[in-house]
Amino acid sequence: MSETLSLTRIDADLLNSLMETVSTFGATGDGGVDRPALTDAHQAARDWFRSVLEALGYTVLVDEIGNLFGRIDLAGPDAPLVMIGSHLDSQPKGGRFDGAYGVIAALAAIETWRREAAETGIPPSCNYVIADWMNEEGARFQPSLLGSSVFAGQVDLDWALARCDRDGLSVEEELIRTGYKGTDPAPRPDVYLEIHIEGDDKMETAGARIAPFCRHWGALKVRIEVTGEQNHTGPTPMEDRKDAVLGAAYIIAEVKRLADIAEDTIFTSVARVDISPNSPNIVPGKAVLFCELRAPEPAMLEWSEESLRAALPDLAAQASVEAEIVSVDRRPAGKFDARLVRLTERIADDFQLPRMQLDTIGGHDAVAVNAILPAIVVAVPSVGGVIHRNDEYTSPEDLAAGGDVLVDMIRRIDAAKGDLDRAAGANS
Amino acid sequence: MSETLSLTRIDADLLNSLMETVSTFGATGDGGVDRPALTDAHQAARDWFRSVLEALGYTVLVDEIGNLFGRIDLAGPDAPLVMIGSHLDSQPKGGRFDGAYGVIAALAAIETWRREAAETGIPPSCNYVIADWMNEEGARFQPSLLGSSVFAGQVDLDWALARCDRDGLSVEEELIRTGYKGTDPAPRPDVYLEIHIEGDDKMETAGARIAPFCRHWGALKVRIEVTGEQNHTGPTPMEDRKDAVLGAAYIIAEVKRLADIAEDTIFTSVARVDISPNSPNIVPGKAVLFCELRAPEPAMLEWSEESLRAALPDLAAQASVEAEIVSVDRRPAGKFDARLVRLTERIADDFQLPRMQLDTIGGHDAVAVNAILPAIVVAVPSVGGVIHRNDEYTSPEDLAAGGDVLVDMIRRIDAAKGDLDRAAGANS
Repeated sequence: MSETLSLTRIDADLLNSLMETVSTFGATGDGGVDRPALTDAHQAARDWFRSVLEALGYTVLVDEIGNLFGRIDLAGPDAPLVMIGSHLDSQPKGGRFDGAYGVIAALAAIETWRREAAETGIPPSCNYVIADWMNEEGARFQPSLLGSSVFAGQVDLDWALARCDRDGLSVEEELIRTGYKGTDPAPRPDVYLEIHIEGDDKMETAGARIAPFCRHWGALKVRIEVTGEQNHTGPTPMEDRKDAVLGAAYIIAEVKRLADIAEDTIFTSVARVDISPNSPNIVPGKAVLFCELRAPEPAMLEWSEESLRAALPDLAAQASVEAEIVSVDRRPAGKFDARLVRLTERIADDFQLPRMQLDTIGGHDAVAVNAILPAIVVAVPSVGGVIHRNDEYTSPEDLAAGGDVLVDMIRRIDAAKGDLDRAAGANS
Repeated sequence: MSETLSLTRIDADLLNSLMETVSTFGATGDGGVDRPALTDAHQAARDWFRSVLEALGYTVLVDEIGNLFGRIDLAGPDAPLVMIGSHLDSQPKGGRFDGAYGVIAALAAIETWRREAAETGIPPSCNYVIADWMNEEGARFQPSLLGSSVFAGQVDLDWALARCDRDGLSVEEELIRTGYKGTDPAPRPDVYLEIHIEGDDKMETAGARIAPFCRHWGALKVRIEVTGEQNHTGPTPMEDRKDAVLGAAYIIAEVKRLADIAEDTIFTSVARVDISPNSPNIVPGKAVLFCELRAPEPAMLEWSEESLRAALPDLAAQASVEAEIVSVDRRPAGKFDARLVRLTERIADDFQLPRMQLDTIGGHDAVAVNAILPAIVVAVPSVGGVIHRNDEYTSPEDLAAGGDVLVDMIRRIDAAKGDLDRAAGANS
């Protein structure tokens, strides 16, 4: 136990009640939510969250890429600014905890801390801002982490605004339609904290309840266009066919083979395929493959990209089609702030919560933010490792445990006046 | 040259002008049309064709599955009834000739014959009816040949009406919406003629300009449902993934392999794949494959189906998914009426049009109709064998040559009072 700080727990009633409400927006009736970025359901969730922020005295800011911020200044204007957040958008038919938990827990934790500060009379030394990032999921608009990447200067604002969904609607049009094309400058925090459910069962298997992410895997999002020739599936002789779906099938199998070769060090997928015209009796003229290659080390990513590029011509030739890599979105591998990892671990120990270290393989807004300031993601378990599905589930106890850790991170960073070395107890 | 009959040519101006007009409905601006069954464009084409029929004195009938008929009685009520037709629906982004040519040529040929009969004073001995079959293409609603199959009693009316497109709209709803849910009994003809562009380059290669189809290949339309498990493409360990698209890829490759084994005797394709949720970073939970197996002989079809069924469990297991054949639509192989083949060939010779015999591998309404009455499809060339694509093209000369043959078929069948043996010159 820390000798200088008592352990205040998060206001679990507030956390749970906010989680209940946010889960109603885009609810699918089977426990999940369908709330992709800038849909009506997403707008409704943001409008509600905004109204809660305003009611609690936060200043609401919306920047040009539609990130929503709720800022509350508890210290002077030059005090360190602590940002805590995640995202309210979901996958289509996704779960209720992914993203929403991080936003809701941020608010519940800051509110708990505010109350404690008021009760103890100790003046806070930091200001606070909650972030609800625009389009973390990348389900409707690609790439993912769009709002946080613009925030971190990794993606150009105009390019981001021009991204279109499959119906040709742009981010900019949909920001305007939903009322989130803001003009406020984004806040410039000194540290970024995010809490999130795990997307794997490693914690469950190990019996861990808290896990700081130490590394984030790199990812290549590779879009491959396969071009064949549209023809009748009846009379067109087999040897004359240029079947884009057949070419796609060979490529999909090869992408999987790369993961088999590099067992446990590369994860691969082709999870979306847009086929044209996708009619049962027309030899498909085109197929666009959305391929992902993920690895913890840059060298492995390079190897996978080179291998894929080298294999494409032969795979395409087998189906008499052309295959071309038309875009590659690169997310480099990296490490989260070691002091924040240590801080998380110390707090977990103080709460006697079993802990472990993890890598994050999926993207998180903290991955983008980590490029420009100290950042971390702290994970709580998801039952069975399920994520991106209606039956995604984290128990109220685990939600609260993550919230407790978050409150204590705030308290210690505040007590250290934003000095992370000191907060993490560099000398202990 | 036939000694008893002169060779009247089709009114090519009428044929061309009707072809021009019908090509405006659903025109894509690149030469093609986008006019799937019961879309607004299809309705507009039918409404226009119906108005032309009425203006020319035809009785318009619409049956319960939405087949549109234009009947003109030139002889007594008990005279043989000759039906000529094809379909006005197209593939999405299809060509302007497929189907529309057969409907338009039917009208131009009958009109040419009416005029000739009026000029010569020889009273016609047959009545005539033009058919525009509902949903030949099977692009929006499966299966194809839906209207002609109900007409021929091969498909149950209620089942056909309940077929839904990918948005869940049923044939019945869309028939009502477009004004083609009729109540007229379908005419009961004695013979069925259809003229169509070829979907292959065999005629072009051989220098043939007219080709009766002698056999129609059988087809199995097999729908395969692949069930995996929806998960995040990031954290979910590769060995825990149940990727429906990966399973689909293995099946697609195997379906192609069946055609490779049975070179030239089986044509196979997987031309449509419906993936769910089809999001770049969700391991796909489901993929529905629309697979076709086509062969000229029943034994080959049986072999292909058995081979596919035998291979499915292993292919699915390779991707840790389940694969199930959820429906098989069977179109048996068969032969068109030999007398109509002979009649076509004699007329081609009289016109000095080079000819050849063909099988049809794709479906045609005549294949359905052939089950209950003497039927034939006569093909004219398509440049490069292109079909189901915007650049599908048949020259005005070839369109007219097909029309000439059709007029002469009408004339000879009429002269023989509907006796096909006599019309075909059984004794010559």
